[in-house]
Formats: sequence, structure tokens, C-alpha cells
Amino acid sequence: MTRLIDSTPAADGFRMPGEFEPHEGCWMIWPERTDNWRLGAKPAQTAFAQVAGAIAAGGEQVTMAVSSRQYEHARNSLPAEVRVVEMTTDDAWMRDCGPTFVVDGAGRRRGVDWVFNAWGGLDGGLYFPWKNDDLVAGKVCEIEGADRYRAPIVLEGGAIHVDGEGTLLTTEECLLNPNRNPSLSRQQIEEQLRAFLGIERVIWLIHGSFNDETDGHVDNICCFARPGEVILNWTDDVRDPQHAISAAALERLERATDARGRSLTVHKLPMPPPILITEEEARGVDPVEGTLPRLAGDRLAASYVNYYVANERIVMPLLDERTDAEARRALERIFPERDVVGVPAREILLGGGNVHCITQQVPAA
Amino acid sequence: MTRLIDSTPAADGFRMPGEFEPHEGCWMIWPERTDNWRLGAKPAQTAFAQVAGAIAAGGEQVTMAVSSRQYEHARNSLPAEVRVVEMTTDDAWMRDCGPTFVVDGAGRRRGVDWVFNAWGGLDGGLYFPWKNDDLVAGKVCEIEGADRYRAPIVLEGGAIHVDGEGTLLTTEECLLNPNRNPSLSRQQIEEQLRAFLGIERVIWLIHGSFNDETDGHVDNICCFARPGEVILNWTDDVRDPQHAISAAALERLERATDARGRSLTVHKLPMPPPILITEEEARGVDPVEGTLPRLAGDRLAASYVNYYVANERIVMPLLDERTDAEARRALERIFPERDVVGVPAREILLGGGNVHCITQQVPAA
Repeated sequence: MTRLIDSTPAADGFRMPGEFEPHEGCWMIWPERTDNWRLGAKPAQTAFAQVAGAIAAGGEQVTMAVSSRQYEHARNSLPAEVRVVEMTTDDAWMRDCGPTFVVDGAGRRRGVDWVFNAWGGLDGGLYFPWKNDDLVAGKVCEIEGADRYRAPIVLEGGAIHVDGEGTLLTTEECLLNPNRNPSLSRQQIEEQLRAFLGIERVIWLIHGSFNDETDGHVDNICCFARPGEVILNWTDDVRDPQHAISAAALERLERATDARGRSLTVHKLPMPPPILITEEEARGVDPVEGTLPRLAGDRLAASYVNYYVANERIVMPLLDERTDAEARRALERIFPERDVVGVPAREILLGGGNVHCITQQVPAA
Repeated sequence: MTRLIDSTPAADGFRMPGEFEPHEGCWMIWPERTDNWRLGAKPAQTAFAQVAGAIAAGGEQVTMAVSSRQYEHARNSLPAEVRVVEMTTDDAWMRDCGPTFVVDGAGRRRGVDWVFNAWGGLDGGLYFPWKNDDLVAGKVCEIEGADRYRAPIVLEGGAIHVDGEGTLLTTEECLLNPNRNPSLSRQQIEEQLRAFLGIERVIWLIHGSFNDETDGHVDNICCFARPGEVILNWTDDVRDPQHAISAAALERLERATDARGRSLTVHKLPMPPPILITEEEARGVDPVEGTLPRLAGDRLAASYVNYYVANERIVMPLLDERTDAEARRALERIFPERDVVGVPAREILLGGGNVHCITQQVPAA
């Protein structure tokens, strides 16, 4: 039984756990739209299957939502331990259109279903229409048997990170963007985040990573490793436009205290060298009006921060042979209690996001 | 985790329980095709929603499989306690395209996924194509987390009834029809039924009910009330073509012994007066080539035997004011331990089946 609940998680004693807390499972969406994913999405499907396999191999139940057209192919392409369910979507970003799950102390789990407008609606959004994506959170809640809150604000899951102890990280570039909630002030948005996520304090960064088409999702620049510790996408190259963004974020993070009054330890995670779309990659996409073009030479917003914390493991994107090993070692130092598993992620990045963007955890209740 | 299993239920110690044994839930499909259901399927949707509500009200979890197009409307039309999941289908007969669940003594439950050919394929089948329907059983098993056997024969769930103690009821008209498994003998079909349902003995009736477009599904003429007792669709009117069919079935049933060596008690359940499609009803359907036409004056295969046994209740079709009360009293006498709940079912009957045909139980493990 899945009810639509009229109150708020905070009022009912629910909170969003940190991603590093135990999971019951993880949801993903199978990519297929040929105006975003090259070569009929086949290379992306291989990458998504590897991510699903890496999460499932750690003992976490992965559910892949797949369109009717791709159902048999996806079922045949995925390991048996991945659950495959039919779902119509507009693209493949479960982090952003899926529900944000909240839990209470009594072992209950509910879903928060945010309004989704494809990262900006008709004012800079990435495709039209996005109606199917906006229904995804409700459909996931039905299958999970989770009661659901419909939050009255536009928000994508990738725009927020929490420490599970009252603190939320986000960016002004995204949450204060007039293409999301133009009628709400910063104060009013903070109130909604408190009400729907059970948090107390918001730490605002200014920008997301350079050239991030999501309008600066925090999950591609900074995340919590655990309460009191964050990881920041970093470059020492002062000529790179990422440098000023990361330096400004560092300043805000060093000045911040979290909901428990702690200062934050900041781990700098060096980014890979700039990654550009090749001619061949651009040619593999079917361009259509209304969908963000994929042009040769465009720089992709590559960041190792865009990993997923699965049970007992980190699933990290492999982005460049020159820097992958260093990034892996850095994550191993930050997470000595977890295995770090790398997955080739260029094909995910070409679609506009990375491992974290294509996953959404179901926290243990 | 859902695996495709290469052995058979019988070899693995599984059996199909009787429908009257406890259920964990029930699956249905939301009707929508306008070449079968009149007036855009709206009257049928109301009837299906009433069936779902009646089952759910008895404390049984109902899951409704709904196309992407109808998802929001179905969610809004159904009680909150009905779970709604997206699924592409060709029509709305979960009994026939859904999995047959089998259980073992160790608390495990698996699904049997029969080959589905829309009641006869290109040789008298009811529509083309039927590819989506043939995928339904696998999709249901994924969501239920049930390992799955793919049985190598054409069979619909409405073509069989079992007593859960080794006996199966079916009809020659259906299972020996050359449009199902032309290369298999009666003996070979019995072997498949033994292997995939864990039964030992098959009781063959000759025909299903008069003018039944399924080629004589047993679930519209005869079923087990409990081991050793069957209910038979009946008429005393010797001029009605149903009389000879029912009389022949009675003879077979009276001669039969079940897998435990018992003779059968036969409860005759009088059918309603003949029900014909009206001019107005026929006009509400969009006729297309390849789908069975719905013509004014055609007689429908109305039978009170086509009920569903839910937990603690019988959900029976209401078919004619002149006979509904008598049928209800008969079922109350046969099932003194259950409530008998009637649901207006003419709109279901107009589509070619009834309450039993649109439901598929998930037995308790």
C-alpha cells in the first residue's frame, strides 16, 4: 500500500540519510535515447550495465527501470541479480528524477517526489517533454511500497548532498536558478529543504563544476565522505576555469560549520585533464531540436566526485588513464573501510553526467 | 534476484497450490484497447477497479499492471491500497498471460512462464500481435522476486484448475486444440503439466462453456471449491446448447477419481439466462482487422463459475438480476467460511472473460 501523504517528512520525524549509510538497494534507468547517447546508446548501455554489476556485486539489490522497447535486450544484457522492471522515462538519470528516500527511527521509509523539469524547463532545460521523468519517483515508490510526499518545488536529487546529521550541501547556481523555482527566495527554499529532508542547516556553494549542463549540481563538485568531511573536485591549474570555482567553494567550506557545529575537513580530489567530445563521438548522436546538442570539441564536466557509495564499496568513474590511479588512491585513503571499484565512464560522461547521476540509493529503513 | 531456471518445478519439489489456499497477493491488468473494450474502455476500467477494490478490501495485496499511457488515470481511479506498476501489455487478461506460481515446502515461490499465443495464434487467436503479453509473466516474476521456469508449451492460466493435492482439471477443446501445441499428444501434454505444476492426475472435460472464445477454458465452466469438490456451470434448459456441454462434463466428473483416489462431489451452479451483445454495446467498440469482432446479437459465454477466490472472500460476477441472488446463495452454501462479494461484471464479459480471467493469485510461500 502506497499513500500520497499530505504532511512533510520533518513533521513526521523522517530524515534523509547520508549516502554512506547502509542501503537496501539502488535504482537506475537504462539509457536509450539516440539524441543524447551515441550509436543507439549501445556504448552507454555497456557502461550502465557495468555500474549495475559493480553495485550488485557488493551485495546491494539493483533495480533497472527499462522501457518496453528495450526490456528484453536489457534483461539479456544485465546480470541475473539485477532486477529489471518496465518503466517509461525521458532519459536515464535516476538520481535526478527518482525519489529521495527518507527514514524514521521506527524502521519506516518514505519517498520524496520532487517536481522535475529537465534541469530548467523551457528556460535552458535539456530536453522536452519531461513528463515521463516526472512520474518516475511515484512509480518507484509504488514498487518499493513506500508512502510518498509530493514536494512542491523543482529539485533534482543531484542538486543536494546530506550528511544525515542535519547538514545539506548545494549550490546557488542550481537551486537559486530562475529556471527552477523563480518565485521562491533563498530563505523559502531552505524552508522546503528543512521540511522535506529533515535537515537543519544548508551550506551553499556558489557554482557547480565548470560547464556542467545541470546548472551546477553539487554532486559533480562536492559531497560528504561522512559527517564532518567533504570531498571537493579540485585542480591546481590556475588557468583552468575550474580553479576559480573550486577555490571559491573551498573558501565557503572552510568557513562553514555543520548542523552539529563542526568545522569541515575538506579532501581535495584532483580532476582529470579536460575531456572534450571527439568528432567521432559527436557523429554518433542523432541531433534533434529541443535536446542539448553534443558537439565536437565541447568540454565535458568530468569529476571524480561523481561516484556512488554502495554497500561496502565505492563505484568510481574511470575518466583518464593519466589520473584514474591517483583518484582511486585518494578515495581509498578517504574510505579505508570500503573497496574502491572503477568503471569506465566516458560513455556516461558523454551523456551529461556520471556514476552518481545515474544511481539513486534506497536507504535501509 | 530472479533467475531463469532450467529444470522443472516437479523435479525441484514445487507444486501449484489450489486457488482457495492462502494468497500473498493478486495481479491484474488495466484494460484499455478500444478494439475490444467499448467507449475507450471506461466502463471496463470501472468494473476492473471494483474487482481490485473487492479483493483488496479482504486484505489481499492487489497489483495493477498499467500501460504508460493509462498510468496516471489508473492510479487516480484505484484505491490507494492497490499497487500500480507500469507494464506494456496487449490486453488485460492476467490469468492467461501472467505466471502460474508454484511453491515448495521450504517457503519458496517460483513462477511458471508459459508460451502465450493469444488463444490460438494465427489460427483462430483473438488478436495480433501478442508479444507484449508473452513478456508479462517474466515481468511479474521480476517484481515479485520470483525465480522463473519457461515452460515449452502454449498454455493460458485459465485453461487449468488444480486442487493443490495432485489433480488438474482442463478441457480437450482447449489443450488438445491444434492451435495450441499441434505437435504434442495428449500424453505429452499431460507430462508437461506434471512437470511444470507438480500434479499427478489430469481430469479432462470435453468442452468449455458454449461460445467461449478462448476455445473452452476450464475456468469458465468448472473449478475446484476444495479438494474433492468441484463447481460446474449448469443449465436445466435442454434446448440451450450449454446443456449438452454441461451434461457431458458432469458425466466425466462423476466417473473421475482425483489424485488421492477420491470421487468428486459436483455442485451445479446454474448459469444466467443468455446474454447477448446489444447494438449500443457493439457500436462502442473500434473494430479493426485481426481482432475478434464484437457484434450485436452475439451470445457471451456468461458463467458464475468465473469467480475469484480471494483471501477470506469470493469475488463473483454479477451478470443478471434474475439469477445473481440465487448464484450468490449457492456460493455462500459452498463456501460457508468466506464472504461472497458480487461485482457488476457485464463490462468484463463484453471483453471476452470474467473475474477469474482478469486475476492471477500469488500464493503464500
